[in-house]
Amino acid sequence: MTPSHLPFAGIATFARAPHHAPDADWQADVAVLGVPYDIALGFRPGARFAPRAIREASLRYVPPFTGLDGRTRLEAVSFVDAGDVVLPSLEPELMRQRTTEAARAVRSRCRLPVFLGGDHSVTFPLLCAYDDVPDLHIVQLDAHLDFTDVRNDTKFSNSSPFRRACDALPNLKHITTLGLRGLRFDPEAVAAARQRGHTLVTMTELETNLSAVLDALPTGKSVYLSVDVDGLDPAVLPGTSSPEPDGLSYALATRLICAVTARNTLVGLDVVELAPNLDPSGRSELIAARLIMETLCGALDD
Amino acid sequence: MTPSHLPFAGIATFARAPHHAPDADWQADVAVLGVPYDIALGFRPGARFAPRAIREASLRYVPPFTGLDGRTRLEAVSFVDAGDVVLPSLEPELMRQRTTEAARAVRSRCRLPVFLGGDHSVTFPLLCAYDDVPDLHIVQLDAHLDFTDVRNDTKFSNSSPFRRACDALPNLKHITTLGLRGLRFDPEAVAAARQRGHTLVTMTELETNLSAVLDALPTGKSVYLSVDVDGLDPAVLPGTSSPEPDGLSYALATRLICAVTARNTLVGLDVVELAPNLDPSGRSELIAARLIMETLCGALDD
Amino acid sequence: MTPSHLPFAGIATFARAPHHAPDADWQADVAVLGVPYDIALGFRPGARFAPRAIREASLRYVPPFTGLDGRTRLEAVSFVDAGDVVLPSLEPELMRQRTTEAARAVRSRCRLPVFLGGDHSVTFPLLCAYDDVPDLHIVQLDAHLDFTDVRNDTKFSNSSPFRRACDALPNLKHITTLGLRGLRFDPEAVAAARQRGHTLVTMTELETNLSAVLDALPTGKSVYLSVDVDGLDPAVLPGTSSPEPDGLSYALATRLICAVTARNTLVGLDVVELAPNLDPSGRSELIAARLIMETLCGALDD
Amino acid sequence: MTPSHLPFAGIATFARAPHHAPDADWQADVAVLGVPYDIALGFRPGARFAPRAIREASLRYVPPFTGLDGRTRLEAVSFVDAGDVVLPSLEPELMRQRTTEAARAVRSRCRLPVFLGGDHSVTFPLLCAYDDVPDLHIVQLDAHLDFTDVRNDTKFSNSSPFRRACDALPNLKHITTLGLRGLRFDPEAVAAARQRGHTLVTMTELETNLSAVLDALPTGKSVYLSVDVDGLDPAVLPGTSSPEPDGLSYALATRLICAVTARNTLVGLDVVELAPNLDPSGRSELIAARLIMETLCGALDD
Amino acid sequence: MTPSHLPFAGIATFARAPHHAPDADWQADVAVLGVPYDIALGFRPGARFAPRAIREASLRYVPPFTGLDGRTRLEAVSFVDAGDVVLPSLEPELMRQRTTEAARAVRSRCRLPVFLGGDHSVTFPLLCAYDDVPDLHIVQLDAHLDFTDVRNDTKFSNSSPFRRACDALPNLKHITTLGLRGLRFDPEAVAAARQRGHTLVTMTELETNLSAVLDALPTGKSVYLSVDVDGLDPAVLPGTSSPEPDGLSYALATRLICAVTARNTLVGLDVVELAPNLDPSGRSELIAARLIMETLCGALDD
Amino acid sequence: MTPSHLPFAGIATFARAPHHAPDADWQADVAVLGVPYDIALGFRPGARFAPRAIREASLRYVPPFTGLDGRTRLEAVSFVDAGDVVLPSLEPELMRQRTTEAARAVRSRCRLPVFLGGDHSVTFPLLCAYDDVPDLHIVQLDAHLDFTDVRNDTKFSNSSPFRRACDALPNLKHITTLGLRGLRFDPEAVAAARQRGHTLVTMTELETNLSAVLDALPTGKSVYLSVDVDGLDPAVLPGTSSPEPDGLSYALATRLICAVTARNTLVGLDVVELAPNLDPSGRSELIAARLIMETLCGALDD
Repeated sequence: MTPSHLPFAGIATFARAPHHAPDADWQADVAVLGVPYDIALGFRPGARFAPRAIREASLRYVPPFTGLDGRTRLEAVSFVDAGDVVLPSLEPELMRQRTTEAARAVRSRCRLPVFLGGDHSVTFPLLCAYDDVPDLHIVQLDAHLDFTDVRNDTKFSNSSPFRRACDALPNLKHITTLGLRGLRFDPEAVAAARQRGHTLVTMTELETNLSAVLDALPTGKSVYLSVDVDGLDPAVLPGTSSPEPDGLSYALATRLICAVTARNTLVGLDVVELAPNLDPSGRSELIAARLIMETLCGALDD
Repeated sequence: MTPSHLPFAGIATFARAPHHAPDADWQADVAVLGVPYDIALGFRPGARFAPRAIREASLRYVPPFTGLDGRTRLEAVSFVDAGDVVLPSLEPELMRQRTTEAARAVRSRCRLPVFLGGDHSVTFPLLCAYDDVPDLHIVQLDAHLDFTDVRNDTKFSNSSPFRRACDALPNLKHITTLGLRGLRFDPEAVAAARQRGHTLVTMTELETNLSAVLDALPTGKSVYLSVDVDGLDPAVLPGTSSPEPDGLSYALATRLICAVTARNTLVGLDVVELAPNLDPSGRSELIAARLIMETLCGALDD
Repeated sequence: MTPSHLPFAGIATFARAPHHAPDADWQADVAVLGVPYDIALGFRPGARFAPRAIREASLRYVPPFTGLDGRTRLEAVSFVDAGDVVLPSLEPELMRQRTTEAARAVRSRCRLPVFLGGDHSVTFPLLCAYDDVPDLHIVQLDAHLDFTDVRNDTKFSNSSPFRRACDALPNLKHITTLGLRGLRFDPEAVAAARQRGHTLVTMTELETNLSAVLDALPTGKSVYLSVDVDGLDPAVLPGTSSPEPDGLSYALATRLICAVTARNTLVGLDVVELAPNLDPSGRSELIAARLIMETLCGALDD
Repeated sequence: MTPSHLPFAGIATFARAPHHAPDADWQADVAVLGVPYDIALGFRPGARFAPRAIREASLRYVPPFTGLDGRTRLEAVSFVDAGDVVLPSLEPELMRQRTTEAARAVRSRCRLPVFLGGDHSVTFPLLCAYDDVPDLHIVQLDAHLDFTDVRNDTKFSNSSPFRRACDALPNLKHITTLGLRGLRFDPEAVAAARQRGHTLVTMTELETNLSAVLDALPTGKSVYLSVDVDGLDPAVLPGTSSPEPDGLSYALATRLICAVTARNTLVGLDVVELAPNLDPSGRSELIAARLIMETLCGALDD
Repeated sequence: MTPSHLPFAGIATFARAPHHAPDADWQADVAVLGVPYDIALGFRPGARFAPRAIREASLRYVPPFTGLDGRTRLEAVSFVDAGDVVLPSLEPELMRQRTTEAARAVRSRCRLPVFLGGDHSVTFPLLCAYDDVPDLHIVQLDAHLDFTDVRNDTKFSNSSPFRRACDALPNLKHITTLGLRGLRFDPEAVAAARQRGHTLVTMTELETNLSAVLDALPTGKSVYLSVDVDGLDPAVLPGTSSPEPDGLSYALATRLICAVTARNTLVGLDVVELAPNLDPSGRSELIAARLIMETLCGALDD
Repeated sequence: MTPSHLPFAGIATFARAPHHAPDADWQADVAVLGVPYDIALGFRPGARFAPRAIREASLRYVPPFTGLDGRTRLEAVSFVDAGDVVLPSLEPELMRQRTTEAARAVRSRCRLPVFLGGDHSVTFPLLCAYDDVPDLHIVQLDAHLDFTDVRNDTKFSNSSPFRRACDALPNLKHITTLGLRGLRFDPEAVAAARQRGHTLVTMTELETNLSAVLDALPTGKSVYLSVDVDGLDPAVLPGTSSPEPDGLSYALATRLICAVTARNTLVGLDVVELAPNLDPSGRSELIAARLIMETLCGALDD
C-alpha cells in the first residue's frame, strides 16, 4: 500500500524516506541527519525540537514536484533519513565527537548530506567531517556573523562555529555570509573575518545591489551551505531564538541559494536555529522544510 | 440604547447586523452566511471556528466608514446575519445539499451574499446556488489551484471545489486564479484548467507585470469572488492550514479585489481557509473581516 | 550504536520499535497502529495529531521498567510500530474499510494490538477486526456512553461506535462503561444499553463503592479495552475535545485497568480522543503514553 | 429548521436563547446579561472576554438535560439573552450606573437573572439593582473575601464589591463566603465582615466539617449567589486572574450551590473573574457554563 | 563581577541600568520610566505588561553597540531605570496626576527620558510634564490619529491623548503623525487636527513620496517622539491591541525616527501599545527594545 | 513613595527586596539567588526562565502576611535579592564553580538563602557551599530520585545532583526523598541510596501512612530543603519538564515542608525544575513563589 499523503499521518521520517542508522549499509542521493542540540545558545532554547519538527513538516513536501510550468523536479533522487546523532547530555566535547563521526558516516554513503540543527554551534563538528575537501567554501545565510572567538566564557557557543572551523580546518578557504544585520557586531570577529578575506554581505547590500552580490559568490567550488533561519525575516519565520527584523524574504533566500548551487558543487547543507516552540502558527518549520527541498532542486536538478 | 462600540462586547453577529435564519422573512443589501465545515481539508483543522471568529472581528469594523479624505462608505447599506448553515456531522453529501439550500435562500433575499467558510470545499456547494446566473465568472485569490479531480481518494476535498463546479455548472464560464505559488502543482489539474481557458496568475506575474494582470481581468461580468486566505502572505495572515510564503500583501489583495469589483457585478463572495486557532495574535480574523468590508465598499459604493 | 535516550531525539516510532507496514512480514508481542482521524467528532478537532504525539511521548517510556521495588517489567516483550492506517480524506466508508483491514493485518501478527486514535468513532472499524472472537467483552473508560444511534444526522460519529459495533458484531456480548458523568445523556442510548444488559458505572459509584464495581467487572473473558481519554479528569489530561470535570484520577484509571487485565485476556487496546493541540503543557500525551505502558505491564507481565 | 447542535456553529447567544435588549419587550424564566468589564482588577486582565466565551461554551449545554437516571431538567424553562451592558470605556461611575440600570431592567422581566462578569467589581452595581429585596442574603463562592475598603487607592476594585454593597444597601443582611484560602487577608476587611456577623468559611472547614457548613447556610431567604471562579481549584479552572491552590472541586462547588438553592429562593446569580485568555485548553469557560446550568437546575427544577 | 550577558539572567532593569526611584538623588543621560497602564484601551488588554517585557528584551541590547563598520555608539551614555509609576487601580484622574509627577521628576534628572507605556492614553499625562518647553513639537508614529474628543463616553481613552494635550498645553505647537492607515477615521478628529495645522501622513504617502515627507518634518525644534507600536506592520510586530495591515517596516520606522532626531532636539520618547501577551514568538518586545536603542543612537550619538 | 502593589508593575526583584550582588556589602534574614541554568536536563528546556518568573510572581506575595485568624507572619524578616549567578554559556565546570562561589557569598550574609533554579543539577554546586555544615541533612520533594551515577554519558545531569553531593561532601549525612513515583527507577541508584540509608518515600506511602512518614522525618538537624516542582501534581503545577501524575497536592507539600521546618533548622532552600514556558496559565510560577513564602513562614516564624 502506498504511504499516506496526509502530512499528519504516518511515521515522520524526512519526506517519508527509509530510516537507516548513519553507519548501516545504505546508499542514497540525499541523506538527512538531525543534531537535536541547543545547549550552546545563549537566549531562548527550542532548536533541539527542530529535527523532529522539520521531518514532520517535510511530509507536506514529498518529492517529486511538478511546477505550474509542467517541469518535474527531484523525480529520480533517492533519500535516506539517517535519524539523529545519538547525543550525550551536557558533555560538549563528546557531543562534537559523535556529531563529526555521524556526519562522516553519512557523507560516505550519499551524494549530498542535509543536516538538521540544533543551534548554530553544531555546524562546527559537522564541518569537521569535511576536512578532506580541498578548497572548501562556505556560504552562510545568517543575520549574525558567528565568528566570535569567545562568548560568555566559551569557545563553542552558537556564536563561534565558523571561527572554530577556521582554526581546525586548513582546507577551509573562504566564507561568504549573506544577510548580516543588527545593532551590534563583535569587532574582533569582524576584523578576523575581514583579515581572512571573507565576504560579508549586509541586508542593505542585498537590497541595493543584488547583482554585485551575486557576482561575488564563489564559482566552481565545493560549497557547504549553512542556513541559519534567522537570516530570514522574523515575519516570515518567527520561530528562532534571536530574531532580527528586516531580513531575507523567502524569495530572496531561495534566489541566493539557487545562485550558489547553480555555480558550485554543493557538498553539504545545514539548517539551524529553528525553534518550533516559539511559533505556534507552525509555519516556521514548514518554511524550513520547503527551503531544504528547493535547495535540493537547485543542487540536484538544475 | 445604541449597541456597544467595544468589539469584545455584545452578541457577535456580523457587524452587529440583525440575525435571521436564511429562510425567514427578511431583505437586506448584504447577508452573511457561515459554513463552519473543515473536515474536507487534509492538514490542520480549525476553519470550522472561522465564521464565529470573523463575526467577532467584524465588530471592529461596523460600517459606515469615513476615510481620512472625509468620504463615507457603506452608509446606506443594510446587513443581515443569516447565521450558519445547520450542518450534519460527517455526512458530506448532506452537508453539500444543506449548504446549497441555505445559500439559495440567502441569495434570494439580498443583493450580495457573503459566505464565511470553512475550508475551500464549501465553495462548491455555494456555487451550486448560482446555477442560474448566465455567463458566471469566478475570480479566486489563492495560493493553490484547487482544481484537482481526486485527492486522497475523494472528489470533494478542499483541493477540488472548482473542478466540481465546472463539472456541475454549465453556466460557469471562466475562472481567474490570482496568487498561485508553491513547490508543487497537480499536472492534471493544471492541464484541465488550461484546457478550459482559465487564467492562472502567479505571484511572480503579479509582482512583475501587474498592469497586464489587471487588463486580463473579466469585465462586465457577473463575478463570484472566492478568497482563500492563504492567498495572502502568511506573515500577514498566519492563521491558515497550508501557508505558502511570498504571497499577497494586504494592499495588493485589496487592489486586485477593487479592480474586480470596479469592472464587474459581484454576485457572491466567500472567504475560506481561515484557521483562527493557528494564530494566537488574533490578527488573522481581523484582517479577514476587514478585507470583507473593503470588498463590500468596492462592490456597493464605488 | 544504541538509540538515543533523549525523548526529543531520533525517529519517533512507538517506544523506538521497528516500523513495519501492517501487511509486511513481521511478528511481535505488541504492535501499534495509529488511526489519525478526527472528522467524526462534533466539537474541537485535533485527535488526528494524537498518534504522532503519543509516539513522541512514548520515548520517555521505553521499556523495560524497573520499579522502586526492583521488579522489572516488559523486559522480554517485543514491539512493532505498524505506522498509521493510510486514510482517505473525507470518505467515511472507505476510512472504515481501510481501518478494519489494517487492524486485521496487525492482529494476525501480534499478541496484543494497541490502536492510537483518532476520535472515538475509530473504535467501530477497529472492533470489526474482532468479529471472530467468541464472547467478546468490551471495557470502556469514558465520560460518555457513546452508544447513540444517530447524532447530528450521522450514524458514524464519535457518539456511536459501540452502537454500531453491537449492530455489526453478533459475537460482542457485553460492554462495561466506567467513568460516566456529565449533564446530559441520550435517553434512547441509555435505554438501549440497559436493554442489552451493559454495565454503566458512574464516577459517583466509582468513588463511593469501588469494590462493588471491581467485583462486577468481567472475568475470564476476551476483553477489548477502549480508553477515551476524557474518562480522565481534565485537570489530569486537559487535551481532549469534550472535557467533563470530576473524572478519573490517573491512579484510579490504572487501578481499574489493572483489575480488568488481571481477570481477563486483553485482545486489544485503543486510546482515543486525545487532542494534543489543546494542551500546550504537553502532559496530555505523556499521560496517554504512560497509561498504555502500564496497561501493557498489567496485560503481559502480571 | 432546528438550530445547529454543533457548539462551534451558529450565532452564540446563551444556550441559543433569543436575544433581546434589557429594556425591550420580553419575559422569560431566565435571562442572561453580560458585563464585559475587567479594568477594576489589579493583576491579569481578560475577564472582559468572559461573557462571550461563556456564551460560546454554553452551546455544549443547551437544555433540557436528561440524566443517566432518566430524569429531565430545565425542560419547560424559557431563556432570553439580554446581551451585554453597553459600557463606557474607562469611566467607572458611568459603568456602575449603566450596569445597575440594565440589571434592573433584566430583573423586571425574568424570574432569575444570570449575570456574566467581568471582574468581581461588577457585583456591586449588580447588587444595587436588588435594593428592594427585603432581607437580602448573599452566598459567595470565592477564594478571597472581597470586603476590602480601599485597595490601591480605589474603593471600587474587584476587592471591594461586598463592602460597597453593605455601605449602599440597607436591605443586605448577611453574606456567607465559602472557599476562603490563601496567604494573606486584609485584617480590616476580616474584622469588618466579622463585626457584621458574616459567615466566613475556609477550604479547611469545608473539607473537615462539611455538614456543619451546610447547616450554617441561610434557609428560607432571598439569596443572591456570586460565584467567583477562583473559588474553584485552579487545576479545575485555570483561567482566572488570581488563582489560589487547594480550592473547590467542581463536585463540591455544585454540591454547595445545590444546598443553597434547595433551601432558599435564588434571586440572582453572577459568575465572575473568568479569564478565558489564560486557559488555552478552553475548559475554563466550559466549566463555568456548565456550573451555571447546574445552578439553574437546582434553582428552577428541584 | 561583571553582570551577566545572558538576556534571561539577572534582575531586569532597562539595559542593566541602576534602579532609582524618580524622586531619588541621581543624574543620567537617559532615564527610563514605565507606565504599566492599559485600562483606557477599548479592545485587547496587555499593554500593562509592556514595561516589564521591554526591560527584559532590552537585555539583548545593552550598549555600547559596535556596527559592522566598526563605529561604536552609546558608549559614553549613562542610563538609569526609574522603575514604574506607582499607579492606583482604576482611578483615572489619580493615575494621570501620578504619571505627570513622576515624569517631571525624571525629566529633571536626565537629558532624555524614555517612557514605556501602557496604552496610548498615558502620553497625555506624560506630555503634561512638558508644559514648560517652548514651542513643543510632537512626532507620532501611529496607524491611528488618536485625536478623538470623546470615545465610548470618555475623554481620556487611548484615542484621545493628543487632543487632551492640545487642550491642556498652550506650548504644544504642532503634531506630525506618520503611518496613518485603516478603514475608518473620526471625521471630527481629522477636521480638528487639520484646523490646527497638524501634518497627517499616510502609509501611502510614505511609500510613494518619502522625500517630501522627510522634507516636511520639523527642523530645529524640541520634539517629543511618541511611538505607537501599531504604526509598525503587524507582521513585524504582532503584539498590539489594534493591528492594522500595511504598516511601517522596521527599517522605515527607524529611518523616519533618525530623520527626526537628526533635525531636532529630542526631549522625550514614549513607546506605547505593546501587548506582549498577544505575541507568543516574543519578537514584539525585542523589536520595541531595539527601536528604543536605535532612537537613542540617533538622538545622542549622531 | 511606597512601591507599587500591582504585581505587574515595578522592577521585579524577589518580593520587592533591594538588589545586591552576592559579594557586595549587605546583611539580611533571607537572601535570594537565581541560577538560570537548564542545559543539564534531558527533555524540555525552560527552567532558565524560572528565576525571573518566580521573582515576578513573588510580587503577589510580598510579606508580611496576615491570615484569616489575624496572625501576621514574616513581619520583621528582611530580604535581599542577590540576583542571578553570572553563568557562562555551555561550560559545565565553570558553571558549577561560579554557582558554589555565589552561594557561599550569599550564605555568609544571610540567615537563610533561597535558591531559584534552574534544573535540578544546580543543587549539586549549591550544596557544595554547605561543605562546612556538620551533620547535614537533605529533605527533597521530588517525583524522581535524582541519585543516578551517570545518565546519557554525563555525571552532572539533573538526574545526579544528590549522587554527586554524596561523593563530594563527607558532612552530608542523610537524604529523605518525599513524593517518589513513576514507571521507572534506576536500579543502581535505588540500591546506592538504600545502602547509604536514605529514606525513600513514595506517594503511596504519603497517602496511606502520612503519620509514619512524618515521624520518620529528621529532627533537630541542619536541613537543606530541595523542592523539585515536579514533586507536585502536574494538575497543580503543569510547568515542568518531566511531569508525573498522581503527585503532591499543594496542601500536602506545604504540610510536609512545615513538618520539616518545625523540627529542624533550615539552612537552605532551593526550588528547581520550574519551566514557566510550559504553562500559559501562569499558575506554575505563582505556586512556586507562594510555596517559598510559606516555607519561610514555617522556618522563620513558627
